[in-house]
Amino acid sequence: MSQNIRAGLVGVTGYTGMELARLMAHHPSMELVRVTSRSEAGKPLSAIYPFLQSIPVGELEITMPDPEDLAQACDIVFLAVPHKTAMEIAATLLDHGVRVVDLSADFRINDKSVYEQWYAVEHTRPELLETAVYGLPELYLDQIAEARLIANPGCYPTSAILGLAPALSESMVATDGIVVDSKSGTSGAGRGAKVGTLFCEVHDSFKAYGLGTHRHTPEIEQEVSKLAGADMTVSFNTHLLPIDRGILSTIYTQLKDDGMDLATVRAAYEKFYAGKPYVRVLPEGQLPETRFVRGTMFCDIGLVKDDRTGRLIIVSAIDNLCRGASGQALANANLMSGLPLETGLPKAPMMP
Amino acid sequence: MSQNIRAGLVGVTGYTGMELARLMAHHPSMELVRVTSRSEAGKPLSAIYPFLQSIPVGELEITMPDPEDLAQACDIVFLAVPHKTAMEIAATLLDHGVRVVDLSADFRINDKSVYEQWYAVEHTRPELLETAVYGLPELYLDQIAEARLIANPGCYPTSAILGLAPALSESMVATDGIVVDSKSGTSGAGRGAKVGTLFCEVHDSFKAYGLGTHRHTPEIEQEVSKLAGADMTVSFNTHLLPIDRGILSTIYTQLKDDGMDLATVRAAYEKFYAGKPYVRVLPEGQLPETRFVRGTMFCDIGLVKDDRTGRLIIVSAIDNLCRGASGQALANANLMSGLPLETGLPKAPMMP
Amino acid sequence: MSQNIRAGLVGVTGYTGMELARLMAHHPSMELVRVTSRSEAGKPLSAIYPFLQSIPVGELEITMPDPEDLAQACDIVFLAVPHKTAMEIAATLLDHGVRVVDLSADFRINDKSVYEQWYAVEHTRPELLETAVYGLPELYLDQIAEARLIANPGCYPTSAILGLAPALSESMVATDGIVVDSKSGTSGAGRGAKVGTLFCEVHDSFKAYGLGTHRHTPEIEQEVSKLAGADMTVSFNTHLLPIDRGILSTIYTQLKDDGMDLATVRAAYEKFYAGKPYVRVLPEGQLPETRFVRGTMFCDIGLVKDDRTGRLIIVSAIDNLCRGASGQALANANLMSGLPLETGLPKAPMMP
Amino acid sequence: MSQNIRAGLVGVTGYTGMELARLMAHHPSMELVRVTSRSEAGKPLSAIYPFLQSIPVGELEITMPDPEDLAQACDIVFLAVPHKTAMEIAATLLDHGVRVVDLSADFRINDKSVYEQWYAVEHTRPELLETAVYGLPELYLDQIAEARLIANPGCYPTSAILGLAPALSESMVATDGIVVDSKSGTSGAGRGAKVGTLFCEVHDSFKAYGLGTHRHTPEIEQEVSKLAGADMTVSFNTHLLPIDRGILSTIYTQLKDDGMDLATVRAAYEKFYAGKPYVRVLPEGQLPETRFVRGTMFCDIGLVKDDRTGRLIIVSAIDNLCRGASGQALANANLMSGLPLETGLPKAPMMP
Repeated sequence: MSQNIRAGLVGVTGYTGMELARLMAHHPSMELVRVTSRSEAGKPLSAIYPFLQSIPVGELEITMPDPEDLAQACDIVFLAVPHKTAMEIAATLLDHGVRVVDLSADFRINDKSVYEQWYAVEHTRPELLETAVYGLPELYLDQIAEARLIANPGCYPTSAILGLAPALSESMVATDGIVVDSKSGTSGAGRGAKVGTLFCEVHDSFKAYGLGTHRHTPEIEQEVSKLAGADMTVSFNTHLLPIDRGILSTIYTQLKDDGMDLATVRAAYEKFYAGKPYVRVLPEGQLPETRFVRGTMFCDIGLVKDDRTGRLIIVSAIDNLCRGASGQALANANLMSGLPLETGLPKAPMMP
Repeated sequence: MSQNIRAGLVGVTGYTGMELARLMAHHPSMELVRVTSRSEAGKPLSAIYPFLQSIPVGELEITMPDPEDLAQACDIVFLAVPHKTAMEIAATLLDHGVRVVDLSADFRINDKSVYEQWYAVEHTRPELLETAVYGLPELYLDQIAEARLIANPGCYPTSAILGLAPALSESMVATDGIVVDSKSGTSGAGRGAKVGTLFCEVHDSFKAYGLGTHRHTPEIEQEVSKLAGADMTVSFNTHLLPIDRGILSTIYTQLKDDGMDLATVRAAYEKFYAGKPYVRVLPEGQLPETRFVRGTMFCDIGLVKDDRTGRLIIVSAIDNLCRGASGQALANANLMSGLPLETGLPKAPMMP
Repeated sequence: MSQNIRAGLVGVTGYTGMELARLMAHHPSMELVRVTSRSEAGKPLSAIYPFLQSIPVGELEITMPDPEDLAQACDIVFLAVPHKTAMEIAATLLDHGVRVVDLSADFRINDKSVYEQWYAVEHTRPELLETAVYGLPELYLDQIAEARLIANPGCYPTSAILGLAPALSESMVATDGIVVDSKSGTSGAGRGAKVGTLFCEVHDSFKAYGLGTHRHTPEIEQEVSKLAGADMTVSFNTHLLPIDRGILSTIYTQLKDDGMDLATVRAAYEKFYAGKPYVRVLPEGQLPETRFVRGTMFCDIGLVKDDRTGRLIIVSAIDNLCRGASGQALANANLMSGLPLETGLPKAPMMP
Repeated sequence: MSQNIRAGLVGVTGYTGMELARLMAHHPSMELVRVTSRSEAGKPLSAIYPFLQSIPVGELEITMPDPEDLAQACDIVFLAVPHKTAMEIAATLLDHGVRVVDLSADFRINDKSVYEQWYAVEHTRPELLETAVYGLPELYLDQIAEARLIANPGCYPTSAILGLAPALSESMVATDGIVVDSKSGTSGAGRGAKVGTLFCEVHDSFKAYGLGTHRHTPEIEQEVSKLAGADMTVSFNTHLLPIDRGILSTIYTQLKDDGMDLATVRAAYEKFYAGKPYVRVLPEGQLPETRFVRGTMFCDIGLVKDDRTGRLIIVSAIDNLCRGASGQALANANLMSGLPLETGLPKAPMMP
């Protein structure tokens, strides 16, 4: 198909690269034509990912990352490399006229100094921060379609922001005192060889690992502040689950009006997400489970009013690899390419 | 789409019903129009399967099984009910001119008396045994396309037969003394509420549960005997894995010719499965893992020659719910409907 | 050994019964002499628990629960039966002069009306509420030693109360606005045959299931109110982990004095738990993991000050079956019998 | 206690070192007085194993391995270092008059050339092979008590040899054609940081990894040959389970006398293991599960006769870390120290 959109992927050896390959195998009009890795160049993709054997994408040869080559071969390039590394590659590719979806954190934070404080590195391409669009389709659909550079949202922020957006934009809850208690599957910790993520260290256990210090904090605060129209500080805290995929965030807020009933809150959520195919506001009494979104773009949201404390408790669940990374990146690429958001994305979760 | 193939599913509350719903959500030209369950009739499918909310198939109302209604509404019907129950429903549906894919064991065993011995019930529709086609596409592609009634293979037999087929049909291994040591994920044990399959009874454990006595034994023996052209007795033994999906069978055979090298064996396997998109004969030195076939129709086969004992050890891996049940059923329905085998089926496994 | 303490266990078929049997097998001076179950009477214990074969406790024959017999045979009886059932059995046994450790909720709530509101049953033995001692050794060591009836704490409350006790008793944190976000392993859901706790429904998933409505809420509020010297309302919320054992609670509090540093908080925690062998206040920078307490009585507590929000975040981890149920019951029985608290209890966790 | 046996552990950073520390914490008359690690020297043990905080063994400072110091401080030393490294350390310690339990493979194989062939390194201390005793208490109880150097059995061999011993020593089964299909938990793969044993690579999957090539093969063959009184070749094959602990071996043998009934076989097994506290021959119809031996020295053996094929199928289950490594090492140390075999070892498995 000559009119196919030609895509490149820089950094294929991690779980987000793996997930993008899976998704691309099902896409009707976008094709992966370049995958790069400094350590694995020269091998077919299926040599490092045996599950891709006999699938066309698995035949693709891994190459060294070369901006000239990527610019010539690709209409759009996904960056699945660490922060700091991404910013220079993105700049070069943009100079070559290629559209870029950056899965790192490098262009998510609008304020250079906030980025530098949390990530402890210098931002060398601050001029691109203004042109980058935060790739959360429920909030920035039109801007994404026009963008040259997408800052693909972090996994935790996707779950936190989607959970909070209607409550904040409708001023239903107080902007201070919010607690986001998030739990993530282990694929979120990456594919590097570390003792801490060995099977026997994670399996049949559970731990907190980032309390008040996770780098996704400023990203969450930036976006919820925009929604609320006020500077917000959020207590964001993370835990490690012995599951492959999935993030569930339990979000504690205080209703401004104690007397507001849950049906009113739910109606506001349903209105906010009307026409958004990938957010499901669950019926009253139903709460999200990570398995119910496995492998998909869905963000499931459950709402509870605790009458004893006047709290609105919001629970949101996503698949951290699909919705929280590569699926969302692909959705953004669809929009940037003039395709419908849903093109080629999985329609139903895999259960069990 | 008026020319869509209209499908029905009798028995939707188990894992195979769940899997068929997932697969059908992605099918471009077959649509689930009826799902039945005696216990859940009257609810939308998404009421019992929250992961299907907002997906069209989830809106479908569960009905009581009614052959007249099914016959009128459906071009093809999948039976995901227990053995013995299936045989009468199948007969009625066939009488009404509907094509049937039976996921139970009722039509898999050609010999009525063998069926009755292993399943300890009377077979009341023996006249259908002759017309039923064993739905393993690698062996019976043409017959499936012509069939009115498909006996969809068991999960374990799919893995064992595909693993042994080339070795037996090419007379490379002895027909006696074969041991099939199979390990299955827990979804194979069904969705009934039993203490033995509770999370805390299965998780972080492993057991043997059927040694020489599993009901899939005669099904395996029937098909491998046909391939070998000789009556075979197989030692078939099963174990329970603390995973959701997946069967891996380690198959011990004796090479007839000790001197035959592995490359020759592999060449015969590759030739046997040439043009079969869902069997992957792995490169020398590579062995199957259940995750590499997760959610797909793939059967991965690894081959090892043990020079010390003259054994050919065959390892095959499938997803028990997709390849071992509902995906294979859908592939058979595709063929029966004049569609390509692969229509609507997942192209790449979900990893991790 | 004639001077052994003779113990009985009413209700042996659940996970707490199972755990008590494991622990009792290691006890030097207490012996299980009666185990009862209406459904399994007549069998040796090892017939329902094969892991106890060849161990003396496994030889014990399960009997029907008979208060006369229990009173004659036992010095102390553990009740591992559902709430409501326990209250009458306890009363009868106490009448017969037997000491009782009740693992149900029946005697945990001092206020009859609060109990009846949350548990939706009538309390028919309110006269015993005054004599019952809440069996949390860190708070009630002396009273336990004198008690005839112990209300053994719930699993979640054990983790929440131990986490909060020093902060509240030292008035370091505000008494309102506290959020307890708890996550429990699946053994906490019991050993009944239910679809919701099947392996394939729990494994590789995570969910919230009780937000603001869990029955352990009044128990937590009762005890923390005593510690704080003020009526407290706590937002208590529960989640289900795909692990066998373990509860981890992340507790969000507000420091009364924003300027109080973490070292001061930690010092207060260490002082509060000085001489308590089973609470470990972790060094700064270290956070609990459920595996680190597996199979033991330890409660590990990690402390974090979030300077951005002025919050003190407390993380506590226990083994829900040992510390949260049967181990704590045995510790209480030790104290009631004049034995040191630690007698016969595991000394080190099982890792991995 | 001055008459305590003083033990040292060389190589504490792996799972076997971890397990020995757990076990030693419960031992009444043996005390760990030295633990060594080149990479972690200078830290208290609890710094690398937080689960040991507040437990006496956790206070022990890790030192550099120094034979002089070990010899002076210890009555007995456990070696938990890789093969090849162990042989020289053992020799030095023996020269200093210290008893040694070597958990590596260095002294398990009586024939130097067989060792060198399978392990691909030179054996530099062949003179010690004669004095080393294979530390399987069911076979070598008396020799162990007299030994200065114990070759502690491998995990897989422990399960295979105990499963086969009665059948071979009583000549009930053919010595050729035996297949051992073993499955091990992931702790058996060690605690090194490798991508292949990351949680997301192992969890919810299952694979074969060593077919006919595992280094434990010659160890199994050596011991079963002695039992059978004939040179045997065994087909030994290994798989990786997504569990922490546990090995289950399914062993396929051919009965010499087809007519021998299962009761006769079981009687022979019970007789062989009479008086051996840690082998449980299960009742007819019961099969082992790894959870039933978790954390203990038990080896559970289930026996099945397959009348259709004349096979005796033997299933054995052990805990690879306790029975398959550190627990067995401690049992051997008990015997070498004049203590009863069971001293300080766990009495009941941890379930769930």
